[in-house]
Amino acid sequence: MRNLTMMTDLYELTMMYGYFKSGMRDQLATFDMFYRSKGDSTHYAIMAGNEQLMDYIDDLHFTQEDISYLRALNIFDEEFLRELSAFRFHGDIQAVPEGTVVFPNEPLIRVTAPIFEAQLIETALLNIINHQTLIATKASRVVQAADGDAVMEFGLRRAQGPDAGIYGARAAVIGGCVGTSNVLTAQMYNMPAMGTHAHSWVMSFPSELEAFRRYAELFPTSCLLLVDTYDTLRSGVPNAITVFNELREKGFEPRGIRLDSGDLAYLSHEARRMLDEAGFPNAGICASGDLDENLVRDLKLQGACINTWGVGTKLITSEDCPSLGGVYKLSAEYVNGQPMPRIKISENPVKVTNPGVKKLYRIYDRDNGMAIADLIALEHETYDESVPLTIYDPVNTWKSMTLTNYTMKPLQVPLFKNGQRVYESPALMDIQRRCKEDLDTFWDQYRRLLNPHRYKVDLSDSLWMLKNSMLQQLKR
Amino acid sequence: MRNLTMMTDLYELTMMYGYFKSGMRDQLATFDMFYRSKGDSTHYAIMAGNEQLMDYIDDLHFTQEDISYLRALNIFDEEFLRELSAFRFHGDIQAVPEGTVVFPNEPLIRVTAPIFEAQLIETALLNIINHQTLIATKASRVVQAADGDAVMEFGLRRAQGPDAGIYGARAAVIGGCVGTSNVLTAQMYNMPAMGTHAHSWVMSFPSELEAFRRYAELFPTSCLLLVDTYDTLRSGVPNAITVFNELREKGFEPRGIRLDSGDLAYLSHEARRMLDEAGFPNAGICASGDLDENLVRDLKLQGACINTWGVGTKLITSEDCPSLGGVYKLSAEYVNGQPMPRIKISENPVKVTNPGVKKLYRIYDRDNGMAIADLIALEHETYDESVPLTIYDPVNTWKSMTLTNYTMKPLQVPLFKNGQRVYESPALMDIQRRCKEDLDTFWDQYRRLLNPHRYKVDLSDSLWMLKNSMLQQLKR
Repeated sequence: MRNLTMMTDLYELTMMYGYFKSGMRDQLATFDMFYRSKGDSTHYAIMAGNEQLMDYIDDLHFTQEDISYLRALNIFDEEFLRELSAFRFHGDIQAVPEGTVVFPNEPLIRVTAPIFEAQLIETALLNIINHQTLIATKASRVVQAADGDAVMEFGLRRAQGPDAGIYGARAAVIGGCVGTSNVLTAQMYNMPAMGTHAHSWVMSFPSELEAFRRYAELFPTSCLLLVDTYDTLRSGVPNAITVFNELREKGFEPRGIRLDSGDLAYLSHEARRMLDEAGFPNAGICASGDLDENLVRDLKLQGACINTWGVGTKLITSEDCPSLGGVYKLSAEYVNGQPMPRIKISENPVKVTNPGVKKLYRIYDRDNGMAIADLIALEHETYDESVPLTIYDPVNTWKSMTLTNYTMKPLQVPLFKNGQRVYESPALMDIQRRCKEDLDTFWDQYRRLLNPHRYKVDLSDSLWMLKNSMLQQLKR
Repeated sequence: MRNLTMMTDLYELTMMYGYFKSGMRDQLATFDMFYRSKGDSTHYAIMAGNEQLMDYIDDLHFTQEDISYLRALNIFDEEFLRELSAFRFHGDIQAVPEGTVVFPNEPLIRVTAPIFEAQLIETALLNIINHQTLIATKASRVVQAADGDAVMEFGLRRAQGPDAGIYGARAAVIGGCVGTSNVLTAQMYNMPAMGTHAHSWVMSFPSELEAFRRYAELFPTSCLLLVDTYDTLRSGVPNAITVFNELREKGFEPRGIRLDSGDLAYLSHEARRMLDEAGFPNAGICASGDLDENLVRDLKLQGACINTWGVGTKLITSEDCPSLGGVYKLSAEYVNGQPMPRIKISENPVKVTNPGVKKLYRIYDRDNGMAIADLIALEHETYDESVPLTIYDPVNTWKSMTLTNYTMKPLQVPLFKNGQRVYESPALMDIQRRCKEDLDTFWDQYRRLLNPHRYKVDLSDSLWMLKNSMLQQLKR
């Protein structure tokens, strides 16, 4: 990843200047990154992007060219520019690991650093985490809909720029895609690159049959033919079967066919029948073309004979919800080494932030290992799993729940301590595995694609009281 | 822009291998890039991305590391890998210049190159042009809705990854935004960076008044205060007025206030009244927070007292239409130096491609200089503006129109000739100016945000006949 130090909103720099000139450069502060729900598509989300965030933090520095540019803006003084020249990040960062199932309003990342430093990283941190978490989540939904069938990520050409394609494909694999068409991403993250041929291959030969035949000669062990260039059932599938027979004579079995247009339910059904009758029951049918989780689910309900799904535009852009909306909010400032909680209020109760330095736990049923609820507590609180635990709804605080037979684990892990990276990213396929295992600890109702049951993200006793007393005080 | 040679779909490489092994490496071919309509949001679009496309083409090469990676996939032979090691682009590229108003189905880019080379660039070409054209178009819609007010691009934190923020901001400026919050983009393209402070600035001082006062001391000539951290009308605006009075005593006039939440129509109205009564009729009101062209237009209809709009998430992601859907289709192959037209058919008439090597013209009314229609013709056709011109609807070909008092100009310009770049990109602000001038040649009905009148993109006589005869032939 290239240096992105200057990829920040101007107001981060003007605020840094303000803190610097006000003697607050080293004022220690804690910020939380979290997202608010945008409906079903983000009820649960899959955390992603930490690795690129760490690369960004590690590489933070202003070049002399950057300093010259900032000088020419005529809003900063030389003392501040000297300070920027020497900029390094010295803070602590904790985050929920990539591939973890997360929910709205949970602190996903906690940054504790001099406010001068914590402010600079806001924009890039949000950009990176918002994007990858969004796409990992969308992929997870599509993979769920495919119900065990392989889902391939095919969206590079419609992604919102190169990074959206490159890191979007990475995120899609975290969310469960088996591979991507994007060669660069496959190379960068050691994962499968996938794909066959386009309509232009077929069009550049005198006939479809010749194009298929040539392709089979070149790739006898992975022969997957795109059959909809001219007429799927009258030309594409019969020609594919001719070539598959020739292939078999040479001792190879075909991979199958790909459908990219038309009524996929009907066409896949007919193509399946033709392939079966021709003696190719093991030839697969891959479908692509404007798919998303809803269409995949509907096609499966209609009995479409499709075993592999190539999902492009609607996955790589998260079409029905193209932004996660994560925010980064000040939650504490330190006075004499002690954190003083800060709160951002709003007329809208769900937009009131949770104050203080916090810790996020997941609580599991001790008998079956399934997730019961998440708990946001204050850092210093300790828990004893042998004692009953009462947790509170953050908005409707009269709603509480008391748990007895439970285990709990903290969800955030340290990424940086005093500016030093202390976390090594797992391999991408290991993150994918973690994601799958994590999803398996949630009952179906929380993962439902439409109108999922709301998973509890509650506050501890102490946090609840702190928040309430701060709200009362602000009202006075 | 970093090297993106490997940022391609695997199938481009497998097809290249196929062409190479079939003796078709140097088969000259022409591809067209165009988009199909996705409703109102893309009826007209603003062309963008050519500069990054040219950088990509100029830098095309496979490193030894890339070749090793491809070798390890075990699908290519050494002869092919040697060919890739020496890969350079040798073709011609023509494109409609950035900032031009374009319409569905028009050839925006024409690539003529050995098919081996033309195939590789498909994915990145589409990625870059689809993204920037989408965002320039969205920005143009928001700027239209703002009806002369300044629109600032604020979306970096919600963009789909770094490039979506960086090049999205570039595209937004082409579409008419006066500047961006993104410092890196401002630096790269020599355009205004904009922004003030966040809620965290206010929260990190003991009181809002102190935070405002400090900000005004630091930035006396550009004092714009965010007034909604605690209570816009009871705290934010009164504190801002106090500080504005202090500023005036020192001889400075305030820039104004920013509203970021709540009912922007009501709040801006009340804030305007308070500022006016306090003697600050020239202090501006900037609004931000989940804005798009529809909300901007509605707020203006309701008489909101807002003169600057900070537009973020919904612009930078083009939320209601997050992909353009541009495609890249083979339109001709050369036999003995002569182009043989190719066509891609489909059950859906609008998806049938236009065959042959084509040229795109815009036709203007000679009296008032306004655009009448665009014409897709064959390359070799010549036109005499003194002779009446008949043009045909591409789908409903019984619809034709005969023009007399017209002028016409070709829209595509050469970017590359024989692999050499022959076009120099204008400065970003010049592209913005061109875009504005170009939009001014279109009647309101074609630019209407909702249900615009369909602008004619017709076929020439010869192209119409060629297409029809090819369709008839394929049917037989």
